[in-house]
Amino acid sequence: MKPTPSIRGGLIPRSAIRKLIPLSKETEKHGIKVIKLNIGQPDVETPPEFWEGVRHFKEKVLAYSPSEGRPEYLDALISYYSRFNLSFTREDIVVSQGGIEGVLYSLIACADPGEDILVPEPYYSNYLGTAAMAQVNFIPFTTRAENGYHLPERSIIEKCITKKTRAILFSSPGNPTGCVYTRAEMELLADIAQKHNLFLISDEVYREFIYGDTEAVSIFHIPGIDDHAVMLDSASKRYSVCGSRVGSIISRNKPFLDAVRALATVRLSAPTLDQLGIANCINTPDSYFIRVKADYKARRDIVVDALSALPDVVCHRPEGAFYVMLKLKGIDTEVFAKWLLTDFSHKGETVLLSPGAGFYATPGLGRDEIRIAYVLECGILKRAMEALIEAIRQFRLL
Amino acid sequence: MKPTPSIRGGLIPRSAIRKLIPLSKETEKHGIKVIKLNIGQPDVETPPEFWEGVRHFKEKVLAYSPSEGRPEYLDALISYYSRFNLSFTREDIVVSQGGIEGVLYSLIACADPGEDILVPEPYYSNYLGTAAMAQVNFIPFTTRAENGYHLPERSIIEKCITKKTRAILFSSPGNPTGCVYTRAEMELLADIAQKHNLFLISDEVYREFIYGDTEAVSIFHIPGIDDHAVMLDSASKRYSVCGSRVGSIISRNKPFLDAVRALATVRLSAPTLDQLGIANCINTPDSYFIRVKADYKARRDIVVDALSALPDVVCHRPEGAFYVMLKLKGIDTEVFAKWLLTDFSHKGETVLLSPGAGFYATPGLGRDEIRIAYVLECGILKRAMEALIEAIRQFRLL
Repeated sequence: MKPTPSIRGGLIPRSAIRKLIPLSKETEKHGIKVIKLNIGQPDVETPPEFWEGVRHFKEKVLAYSPSEGRPEYLDALISYYSRFNLSFTREDIVVSQGGIEGVLYSLIACADPGEDILVPEPYYSNYLGTAAMAQVNFIPFTTRAENGYHLPERSIIEKCITKKTRAILFSSPGNPTGCVYTRAEMELLADIAQKHNLFLISDEVYREFIYGDTEAVSIFHIPGIDDHAVMLDSASKRYSVCGSRVGSIISRNKPFLDAVRALATVRLSAPTLDQLGIANCINTPDSYFIRVKADYKARRDIVVDALSALPDVVCHRPEGAFYVMLKLKGIDTEVFAKWLLTDFSHKGETVLLSPGAGFYATPGLGRDEIRIAYVLECGILKRAMEALIEAIRQFRLL
Repeated sequence: MKPTPSIRGGLIPRSAIRKLIPLSKETEKHGIKVIKLNIGQPDVETPPEFWEGVRHFKEKVLAYSPSEGRPEYLDALISYYSRFNLSFTREDIVVSQGGIEGVLYSLIACADPGEDILVPEPYYSNYLGTAAMAQVNFIPFTTRAENGYHLPERSIIEKCITKKTRAILFSSPGNPTGCVYTRAEMELLADIAQKHNLFLISDEVYREFIYGDTEAVSIFHIPGIDDHAVMLDSASKRYSVCGSRVGSIISRNKPFLDAVRALATVRLSAPTLDQLGIANCINTPDSYFIRVKADYKARRDIVVDALSALPDVVCHRPEGAFYVMLKLKGIDTEVFAKWLLTDFSHKGETVLLSPGAGFYATPGLGRDEIRIAYVLECGILKRAMEALIEAIRQFRLL
């Protein structure tokens, strides 16, 4: 006899973003180049300030950091946020191992098993894994490609709220949509949270990636939200350091943050070297972000210009992050994404995409949508779009 | 109105090991030196091989590592374990963020909420936090100071097993006890696991720290255990790199490890630089371990020689790790540990200890026990023992 894993262990959702990778490796074995548009792993060079920060470590023993974070790291964050007119103290912040630990700890700290978290869908697919780990239910309200995945009207959100609802979790700028909520939308969410006494968990890891004149509104810019707001952040995208595991959980609701602090104590410490690296990234010059943003804007426009012009494609120009979510009417994107790897190439290349269904909780939704991460340089992206357009044309003829 | 955290958020156990730290800071403000025997943070210098490994990273982008671990890291582990006659492949291993993430993921992957995990008590107090996060029950069977915290007889363990039991979780060499299970004890646990179809989660993070002639037995040294065994490990203590967050989860039960891999995918990546540092620690010369072990053995003997001679103290000489758990008959160690900080000093010094109750699940147990982490140099430890003996004498007179 052999012990079997837990039922929940078998149900942890396998990543929608990563599950085609084995197939993609097969494709490459056959000599076809696969342009990877599936993972939000930026190609942007990590700034030298990170490496300088790592080298600041001169102690003889690489010891545990305080569970809530190294003081240098917390102080650098405080200084960083002050640039956005956000004023925090060390007591408001707990370091997390990447943004995702912040999601997990927030869910555990605000909801008991079997309680509900409201989430606009499509949402970042790894959220679903944290919900499974925390044993909470995701109650989705749907946003639509047709209006750029902005929020639906208030009544649609409110009708999802029951006595079991404990929080609304969202990201803006959004993954996978690129949608940046307006101040009015943030105020709407804040007002709903206040009226129904909910936590408002605002994932702001793409804060720096907003293009054009769109205003960057943090949840903490909304007056009166202190008791409800939880801001999640991560250095991964901001400084192109996904392999460092440092984020933050910020709240002025003391009992909530005390619970988060207890969870952080259980896992002892976030990585010490990474915290020092990120602390020194406060010295990254503005020119870095200006250049990076200009690059991403150009990339976004290559993708959107290529695809939004196609018939039977719904593709709004997202305001931020580095993703485009789009609808390919009449195409089963799960089948299409596999077909791209098994039966298609254009000039020796094909593309790896994330099918949309993995970003939805509602069964059946997203099956004609895909997510594109535009984290590659413009020349490659242009070739990828040429191949993708040709693929859509051919696939529609099948 | 203000949203309140979850009930479970309020119940996450605050660390037994760390909770006296604020009081200790107060004591130091009054000019009294506090010798810290509470936390297993070694003072041993991190070997240069770790820093060399970190410097091996030459890529321009600090990218996500594969969720299951960097290949260099996995291969280094395989090579390391082969020295102990343990043969693994990459498919048997998933990297964890420190040993503690391994505990959490193992509990989630082997048990559903409300199911039972058997644990010998006293146990590492952070286990309790992972059980709360995983929503599983700890069912303790008690080990006793009087026989050096070795396992009780088989019937005592077996009578804790019900249909809800999914695993036995233990550490050997043990935290907080320093007890190293004999081959016969490992075989007993293996036999119980096989008979009752349980997972056997063996936390072996103190593998290197065994003194004298005691044999180092891994769970994977027991024949026929492959379907049941889960080995947890961490580089933190081995190479004195607690601030790097790299451990491992090893199992040949494929459905179990698949579930662990899915959990690892949710959290994306363990820290990349730390993995490279640890990978290169495979080159740490044997002389490093020989010296470190000799140091710890001398430290252990200072503590045990000083305390085991006292009347009304039960203090066996532990075979491994760097902890001594001992019984101070008739003393409430919670009160005593606080009194040491508020009302005692000897030659301008006092000691910070971990009271025993935090290492027990059974209410009332451990209240006359303390844990001492002997992670300081011999001279300081001798002064600490002098102060502690004087404190015990004075406290008994109160």
